[in-house]
Amino acid sequence: MKNFSVAKSRRLRSTPYTSRIEKQGVTAYTVYNHMLLPAAFGSTEDSYKHLKEHVQVWDVAAERQVEISGKDSAKLVQLMTCRDLSKSKIGRCYYCPIIDENGNLVNDPVILKLAENKWWISIADSDVIFFAKGLAAGNNFNVNIIEPVVDIMAIQGPKSFALMEKIFGKKITELKFFGFDYFDFEGTEHLIARSGWSKQGGFEVYVQNTESGQKLYDNLFEVGREFNVETGCPNLIERIESGLLSYGNDFDNNDNPFECGFDQYVSLDSDINFLGKGKLKKVKSKGAQKKLMGVKINIKEISLTRSKNLYDKNNNIIGELRSACYSPHFQMVIGIAMIQKSHWEVSQSFKVEINDNTFNGNVCDLPFI
Amino acid sequence: MKNFSVAKSRRLRSTPYTSRIEKQGVTAYTVYNHMLLPAAFGSTEDSYKHLKEHVQVWDVAAERQVEISGKDSAKLVQLMTCRDLSKSKIGRCYYCPIIDENGNLVNDPVILKLAENKWWISIADSDVIFFAKGLAAGNNFNVNIIEPVVDIMAIQGPKSFALMEKIFGKKITELKFFGFDYFDFEGTEHLIARSGWSKQGGFEVYVQNTESGQKLYDNLFEVGREFNVETGCPNLIERIESGLLSYGNDFDNNDNPFECGFDQYVSLDSDINFLGKGKLKKVKSKGAQKKLMGVKINIKEISLTRSKNLYDKNNNIIGELRSACYSPHFQMVIGIAMIQKSHWEVSQSFKVEINDNTFNGNVCDLPFI
Repeated sequence: MKNFSVAKSRRLRSTPYTSRIEKQGVTAYTVYNHMLLPAAFGSTEDSYKHLKEHVQVWDVAAERQVEISGKDSAKLVQLMTCRDLSKSKIGRCYYCPIIDENGNLVNDPVILKLAENKWWISIADSDVIFFAKGLAAGNNFNVNIIEPVVDIMAIQGPKSFALMEKIFGKKITELKFFGFDYFDFEGTEHLIARSGWSKQGGFEVYVQNTESGQKLYDNLFEVGREFNVETGCPNLIERIESGLLSYGNDFDNNDNPFECGFDQYVSLDSDINFLGKGKLKKVKSKGAQKKLMGVKINIKEISLTRSKNLYDKNNNIIGELRSACYSPHFQMVIGIAMIQKSHWEVSQSFKVEINDNTFNGNVCDLPFI
Repeated sequence: MKNFSVAKSRRLRSTPYTSRIEKQGVTAYTVYNHMLLPAAFGSTEDSYKHLKEHVQVWDVAAERQVEISGKDSAKLVQLMTCRDLSKSKIGRCYYCPIIDENGNLVNDPVILKLAENKWWISIADSDVIFFAKGLAAGNNFNVNIIEPVVDIMAIQGPKSFALMEKIFGKKITELKFFGFDYFDFEGTEHLIARSGWSKQGGFEVYVQNTESGQKLYDNLFEVGREFNVETGCPNLIERIESGLLSYGNDFDNNDNPFECGFDQYVSLDSDINFLGKGKLKKVKSKGAQKKLMGVKINIKEISLTRSKNLYDKNNNIIGELRSACYSPHFQMVIGIAMIQKSHWEVSQSFKVEINDNTFNGNVCDLPFI
């Protein structure tokens, strides 16, 4: 596939780590929340193999925060998500589908409860801040909504635990999955969560003190040498194999949470109040008519830049391939597709046209691994 | 400056014209409303010269529409903007700052009044749809809010009038600036406005019938041969010389309309109801403390990828350069900067550091030309 340059400007915001990653050899960017998000450091497959074996440091500052504080903050946050947060605890992260008036998805952030009246919504790629502002104004909520200066770096991979322990001490290894706490680095406290956009384990540092964060970034590479640390970024192959979904790629504002397999995060029976609750009750009683599933296609490469229709043998559309990559693990192309109900049975076959050739594929469950 | 590839995926949406512009030699993209927006076809300066003399066809599908219809649509649209729309007319476009609860900018779209109860908000780069959805839900408005299938192509440049007349007939030359009407192309009606993101004159075709739009795109290049038609895109040099502001580049959600010179679009004295009205009254009575102005720096090139501080002779920050380019017209670098009140006097000098050298510049009024 032909390469095109990204035209940089202030509107595609740089991060505090941009100058570093450019020295370290970033080759491609995507744009996420109006910010540059590294998308490749050379070969995606090499980086995938490294990530599964060693440890990587990622500039994921593009995971912006929407900070909601004030008297009605819990009410507003609950209004935005179908997940029941009434028993949520300070110091915990919650994966929360954000829902609009139609019961469709606006975003799928991780929400951090910082205090009873202070929340960070760590967003995927859509302007949740304006949704929150609209809802707050319309409901006369007493809240303050800002995008704080927070630039996340992620430390991912099986050796991330050893690396982080060397810098922050034993305490950090005791952090539970999706828990967060505050850790000292050379006199500055950083909020660190055990989380990240891979299934290889790791941490996310929510950097508020930019200067200290940059020092920590450099330190991770110094201390990490013995763990074979490298730069990296959210990896297409790893995230598809692991079934980690991506807002905008695998689903968007035309899809509802049941269609995306988020059933466990939809609380219709409790008495919480959230937007689209009535609509989601209807969807549930009727049953979803399409849903995200895995697909396998026995070819060796693919470069997907937009949706691709999947057809049955009579050339009826039975679904839409939305993300795909060559998987070294399965030694074939795998992908995530929105499949119509008629074809939910695992191992249903379909046809797909790639570069003017027609190939056969099969539907499977998610995650792949 | 080093080039980085853009990593394409479904999330950075392609347009109905993408395959065409890639054959026609697009070299760089930016991302705008989660969509690919062409940013260069080779030299920006060559394209600038061509745009000022001939005619270009632009893929600006990334200017997405937020369609608001239904009984309360006028109320919702007015709630979002400080511009008085009470006397707005069907068939007209209105440049409207969108304002949040703090009186700050959310976007600066052109709003098209399609019918008494149907509007298109033709947005700059932020998710206005979620702001509208939040406000509508919070206020219990009876509206329907969607992103319709509309993929704008722009025809810009002094010869755009002759080219469009050849295709659509005399009637199209009678369209007034910021007026729109419906025009037939081979049996399909297209909404066409006399508008566009250059000051060289032209039209925007709001393509709803994709197939007909693609045919029209091809036809513009066939018929346009005699007018020396070329592909192009919003041009950094032309737009800065003309003082056309860009949300995300020149201003953002931290700035209010008075700071951006939008005074004529702020209706504080009428009895319309819009968000942030009280805040903007306070800003007006206190007076803005910073505002966007032009700057000139007597150097021959610049590549601005983030804000740059401007300093007075005592090294106090007096402003922030946000967009800049080399201007063939002035034969020096010009730019758009947010300048503190102390330095609003035209021809005030400042210092700026570019590539480790310090240069002097001067403040001036906008637009440059």
